[in-house]
Amino acid sequence: MTIAGTRLDAAAVEDLAVGSALLGTGGGGDPYIGKLIAAEAVEQHGPVEIIAPQDLADDDLVIVVSMSGAPTVMTEKIPNGGELQRVFDLAAEHAGRPPQAVISFEIGGINSLFPVAMAAYADIPLVDADGMGRAFPEFQITAFNAGGVKFGPRFITDEKGNVLRINGIDATWLEKINRRALIAMGGSVVSSIGLTGADVKRASIHGSLSLAISIGRALRLARETKSNWFTQLRGVCNVLRLFEGKVTSVDRQITGGWVRGNAVLTGLGDAGDRQVRLDFQNEHLIARAGSEGVFDQILATTPDLLAVLDTETGTPITTEGLHYGQRATVVGIPCQPIWRTERGLQLAGPRYFRWDIDYIPIEARMAEINDQLVKGPGTCPGI
Amino acid sequence: MTIAGTRLDAAAVEDLAVGSALLGTGGGGDPYIGKLIAAEAVEQHGPVEIIAPQDLADDDLVIVVSMSGAPTVMTEKIPNGGELQRVFDLAAEHAGRPPQAVISFEIGGINSLFPVAMAAYADIPLVDADGMGRAFPEFQITAFNAGGVKFGPRFITDEKGNVLRINGIDATWLEKINRRALIAMGGSVVSSIGLTGADVKRASIHGSLSLAISIGRALRLARETKSNWFTQLRGVCNVLRLFEGKVTSVDRQITGGWVRGNAVLTGLGDAGDRQVRLDFQNEHLIARAGSEGVFDQILATTPDLLAVLDTETGTPITTEGLHYGQRATVVGIPCQPIWRTERGLQLAGPRYFRWDIDYIPIEARMAEINDQLVKGPGTCPGI
Repeated sequence: MTIAGTRLDAAAVEDLAVGSALLGTGGGGDPYIGKLIAAEAVEQHGPVEIIAPQDLADDDLVIVVSMSGAPTVMTEKIPNGGELQRVFDLAAEHAGRPPQAVISFEIGGINSLFPVAMAAYADIPLVDADGMGRAFPEFQITAFNAGGVKFGPRFITDEKGNVLRINGIDATWLEKINRRALIAMGGSVVSSIGLTGADVKRASIHGSLSLAISIGRALRLARETKSNWFTQLRGVCNVLRLFEGKVTSVDRQITGGWVRGNAVLTGLGDAGDRQVRLDFQNEHLIARAGSEGVFDQILATTPDLLAVLDTETGTPITTEGLHYGQRATVVGIPCQPIWRTERGLQLAGPRYFRWDIDYIPIEARMAEINDQLVKGPGTCPGI
Repeated sequence: MTIAGTRLDAAAVEDLAVGSALLGTGGGGDPYIGKLIAAEAVEQHGPVEIIAPQDLADDDLVIVVSMSGAPTVMTEKIPNGGELQRVFDLAAEHAGRPPQAVISFEIGGINSLFPVAMAAYADIPLVDADGMGRAFPEFQITAFNAGGVKFGPRFITDEKGNVLRINGIDATWLEKINRRALIAMGGSVVSSIGLTGADVKRASIHGSLSLAISIGRALRLARETKSNWFTQLRGVCNVLRLFEGKVTSVDRQITGGWVRGNAVLTGLGDAGDRQVRLDFQNEHLIARAGSEGVFDQILATTPDLLAVLDTETGTPITTEGLHYGQRATVVGIPCQPIWRTERGLQLAGPRYFRWDIDYIPIEARMAEINDQLVKGPGTCPGI
């Protein structure tokens, strides 16, 4: 399914928010806040035209708008819209030509919804694509960067009105400086950066908004028809069920401009001696199984996607939404092909995040350890 | 003595470096590095014309260039000159008119010498004034800010070529964002900001370069004539001798983008049971006397100046130059009048630096506790 050529209305915003929360792999900010802002913008300014990357001319100016910081803080510091407009205008002014479209930096609760709002404000299309095909915690982990985009200045602002322009020598320095600056600026900031149509066509994840909306719709249909959400989800993406249990511990700290921590889920009933631990830096990065606090079996690692959903309702739960006692299901989704290339794994593989382990695709890990896991409908179906 | 109307040559650079190291109150960066860069610039481009603030027209563009960060790091990351030129050009480009002069942000080992180099490169005058009349660790603690200057963007760069433009809502935010950014950028950065001639005339410390050179010259004359350096110093500034002893401990950490710590000096001979502790954040902020590690008598606090000199040679010792075993003398100098106003004390008084004590001028403190201190020629003469 592709939504390019259609217009994104308030109903689609609902589906996008839910799908983005799942693809956001625990991070990407609070989908509720993203949804509110996007829905309000669409209601006030009309539905947003969605275009495919191929619809762009090579020299079109496409502006990325995003929020960065610790999601825990972002939830408390809801932008008032003025920040989005401010950084959008700065990027346009720098480019010296009118922007033709808006694009998301990542798929996540806030960062795939704010661009909807910005496209509505500016009355220009939104591209059915993004920079990650999921959420990652750092700016240089984008298909834009993996694809060799030469970045111009990044513009950053906060709710107080401070404004930064960062000309970084590369994406990693743009990230480092932005991350420190946002700590000074209260823990989260709103940013923009300009790309060309050629950049987007060559170096973005195509069709990711469509996928997010399909996922959101599948989960909505499951609720509406009282059918199994996992079965509905399997109809639109290659999802694997890794574990089902109860959240028994959450350790979460705001440090270095991110939320870092881990959550442990413990099996229910006869599976009560099995546990799974998820470690996150804004996003979930690794899932390991074990028991009695020893987690010696890797289920999946970054760059593959890990998400936690409410077992009963199929609602995605972000890392800041995790709390003791939730009945939850951990799922995994194979990542976009670019993240499995040498360059992709340099940027986003487990070693980049300091786990001294090789990346093994989630479907290969699952095929091997299938028998050892708690089973149920749809568990590790082999994709 | 005023140097306005003269030209600053390599010999004057030597004196300026020594005088700045003393007025830098332990901070302001390594005077040796500042001197090398300024002397080389003056040799290659010719002596620098010094003008008085009153020589500026109200709408003249005057550019502040400075280095910020932990002096310990600044010493390791010597700018190659390209950084100065880069931020100078950015400030000029932003203003849209050619700069008429350069001014120092503070008097300190690096920050009163880099502007000499920049003035030489650009072949424009240097103003006999600065923003502090000493060194302080933060950007908002300037007479510029106390005097209500409306700051435009601050430009920041590093040796790698990353460039930031910060439009802060006020000087405190310019400081906060710059400080965090410089941590990302390796611990020190080179910055610029544009002022107007009217700003400089109204809201700077006039004559501070002249004072620094007078101090440097006095200390040089003492060495050359083998006369008492303290006596020579008394001839040019209102200096008080607080303590003479041996450095017996130094605790120094790079944290938050500054060097923070303290040094303890212990008396010599019969005074061996007396100690003085200096606490610093780049610059010395408080001197307390006591014994056996209990320091219950305040000798002097910020905003008054505190400096440590080699007892034998009268050479100022910066905080990063302090080490065990040095025979050293602690001196104090009453601060510029602006720092004793209500606004000045809000910005630079002991409470700003989290000591819950009232500011009492150094000369008042000394008059009161005079009898209890180690005496010697020139000790607490009452000014």
